[in-house]
Amino acid sequence: MAVNLKAPDALLPIMGIKLAATAAGIKKNQAKDLVLIAFDSDASCAAVFTQNRFRAAPVLIAEKNLRAAQPQLLMINSGNANAGTGETGYQDALTCCDYAAKALNCEPDQVLPFSTGVIGESLPLECFNAALPELVASLSEDSWMSAAEGIMTTDTVAKGVSRQLDIDGETVTITGISKGSGMINPNMATMLGFVATDAKINPSLLDQCLATAVDQSFNSITVDGDTSTNDSCVLIATGCSMASEITEDSDQLELFSKVLNEIMLELAQAIIRDGEGATKFVEVKVINATNVKDAKTVAYTVAHSPLVKTALFASDPNWGRILAAVGRAEINQLDIEKLSIYLDDVCIVEQGGRASSYTEVAGQQVMSQSEILITINLHAGEASASVWTSDLSYDYVKINAEYRT
Amino acid sequence: MAVNLKAPDALLPIMGIKLAATAAGIKKNQAKDLVLIAFDSDASCAAVFTQNRFRAAPVLIAEKNLRAAQPQLLMINSGNANAGTGETGYQDALTCCDYAAKALNCEPDQVLPFSTGVIGESLPLECFNAALPELVASLSEDSWMSAAEGIMTTDTVAKGVSRQLDIDGETVTITGISKGSGMINPNMATMLGFVATDAKINPSLLDQCLATAVDQSFNSITVDGDTSTNDSCVLIATGCSMASEITEDSDQLELFSKVLNEIMLELAQAIIRDGEGATKFVEVKVINATNVKDAKTVAYTVAHSPLVKTALFASDPNWGRILAAVGRAEINQLDIEKLSIYLDDVCIVEQGGRASSYTEVAGQQVMSQSEILITINLHAGEASASVWTSDLSYDYVKINAEYRT
Repeated sequence: MAVNLKAPDALLPIMGIKLAATAAGIKKNQAKDLVLIAFDSDASCAAVFTQNRFRAAPVLIAEKNLRAAQPQLLMINSGNANAGTGETGYQDALTCCDYAAKALNCEPDQVLPFSTGVIGESLPLECFNAALPELVASLSEDSWMSAAEGIMTTDTVAKGVSRQLDIDGETVTITGISKGSGMINPNMATMLGFVATDAKINPSLLDQCLATAVDQSFNSITVDGDTSTNDSCVLIATGCSMASEITEDSDQLELFSKVLNEIMLELAQAIIRDGEGATKFVEVKVINATNVKDAKTVAYTVAHSPLVKTALFASDPNWGRILAAVGRAEINQLDIEKLSIYLDDVCIVEQGGRASSYTEVAGQQVMSQSEILITINLHAGEASASVWTSDLSYDYVKINAEYRT
Repeated sequence: MAVNLKAPDALLPIMGIKLAATAAGIKKNQAKDLVLIAFDSDASCAAVFTQNRFRAAPVLIAEKNLRAAQPQLLMINSGNANAGTGETGYQDALTCCDYAAKALNCEPDQVLPFSTGVIGESLPLECFNAALPELVASLSEDSWMSAAEGIMTTDTVAKGVSRQLDIDGETVTITGISKGSGMINPNMATMLGFVATDAKINPSLLDQCLATAVDQSFNSITVDGDTSTNDSCVLIATGCSMASEITEDSDQLELFSKVLNEIMLELAQAIIRDGEGATKFVEVKVINATNVKDAKTVAYTVAHSPLVKTALFASDPNWGRILAAVGRAEINQLDIEKLSIYLDDVCIVEQGGRASSYTEVAGQQVMSQSEILITINLHAGEASASVWTSDLSYDYVKINAEYRT
């Protein structure tokens, strides 16, 4: 049961982007499992990849190809992560790029491959070979929803967002899709995000925009703290809109970045809302920290705490667990005498102890909500950061323990 | 259900140590909740305390008193952690020390107070005042088991170990007790360990012995990664045995340390065997690391992974989860091409990928055991470290989510 999350009614097309999705037989349940996102080689393309040392074969190749050539095609399969497959897996991913390049009539290194699903199993190459020619033939600007469905694994809801902004009187559109709800294996639901815009913006500036947006979105969420081997996020700018180019000095950069950040955040939050076993959607916001790193460290320590997460599941305003988690956060300075903590606007801790105004009834009321904001005021500086997370429920254990039984 | 753990039949007395335990009314269920451990002021006393920034009032006072005076009494209550209670809690703990000092006829700063149980509630001072005189009167060398029971909170089994060693033809005895099974709040089951010996050894050397032993025992276990605000471990050497003094140059230091380390490890492992919801007792051993810190970082990353822990609960040989956890461990260097991983003696990963000899049947067999050894060979150096942990079960969520419902 995703927390307050529905699939979007429709996603806006992006001029210069064509998509296609099909059930190629990689998944065993006949669901869509192979997606193409095609664009001209003069589009700007930026991407970030998992920091896990064990990067799956497609991640290694996508990163290499992005540096070597002008990408024209993202090829994403679900149902198989092609991770932990060694040299064979690497060669298999290259072979799939060859198939796709032949079908699209481009160079193999212009294809960026992405995989998500079970790990330790070889890619069924014949599925790719058989499906790709027809899939390329069906590429269309209107297939964003179909693509959002095709990249799902254990996701219960297809995730996508569209927004439009005005640049010098011309409309610019941004559409993105994402997937993920935990790092599951054998059904390893890695995080993937693909966002495109028809804005005109050069690759290095696009890189910056992506880095900023990812930092505040996909790099600020956690279901279980387990970083996947396949996480990737791609941002493409086709430049096909009539709007003038967004440059470093342009007034429009701020607006574009703002809308991009919002889209990325909504896509990232959708993953948390659809987190494994999630019954709560929780923002842990740390304010007045010495620096952003400290703020994020404290927020993640609270968001990862199994005791905080089980208390959230139980709707139990168990402030001692939040306090104890803050106390073990690995930051250099923490003045516990100054600390205050809020559940929404209910103060639960002030000056390091239980707030004098706090009542169990008020705390209970906030904790019973499906969306909760935990604010931690360190009273140490002016930096702040938020992390979004879900609770730890029986269903989290069930989904992850019983998958193969 | 504790994993392969029974309460000890008996614990050996330590010359120079007297103990007493009673139900003072701090717990609501009439169970034992107040324990004294008394010794002469010429005993050596070493202690380590939680690294959580939020240290409960008794921890602050015990650490201060240990520095200021020659301790004569450990006063431990269960049922109330006196944590998150601010200045009032601090004064309450001092008042209890006064009561105890009056009853024992010593100075208040010769009393080291320890508390474990619910947080955010005030100590019931009248319980201490009423019970202490009689409790002091009942101090006896034979009350170790009673003390082990008196410090329990959500523990299902009383934990204690005794060992004897020979020093120059004379017998030296070491006895220890511990408690803890997770950091629960409101029933915050903090980790406490109290170990005593009749060996003669000076305080600074005893400090060293304790630091080494704790590092390899209490500081190498994890149930949920949540460090408590009350964790403490105390080691007392009365010097009452006939054996000659253990000095830095003495041949016996190594033997003494070895036996002490074994006792501490057994006490620490007992906490994991009795971990909240535990159905498995798991050692994560990292070998051939560049240094011990790296080895421990990798071991803890695997031991804390909710996905590894749920796989353990499910007896699922889900090697991809172990591999992905190793890949996200925050160490400087990791050559994934060299990595190998074993479940007991079954090789599951070699050269960073699935081992060619691996069969699901062999992996399944090991994972079905109640005790499992995961060995991770980094092939990077010569350092190694082990961390002991439990699995993540429905009962973990139940115990921590449903406590107040």
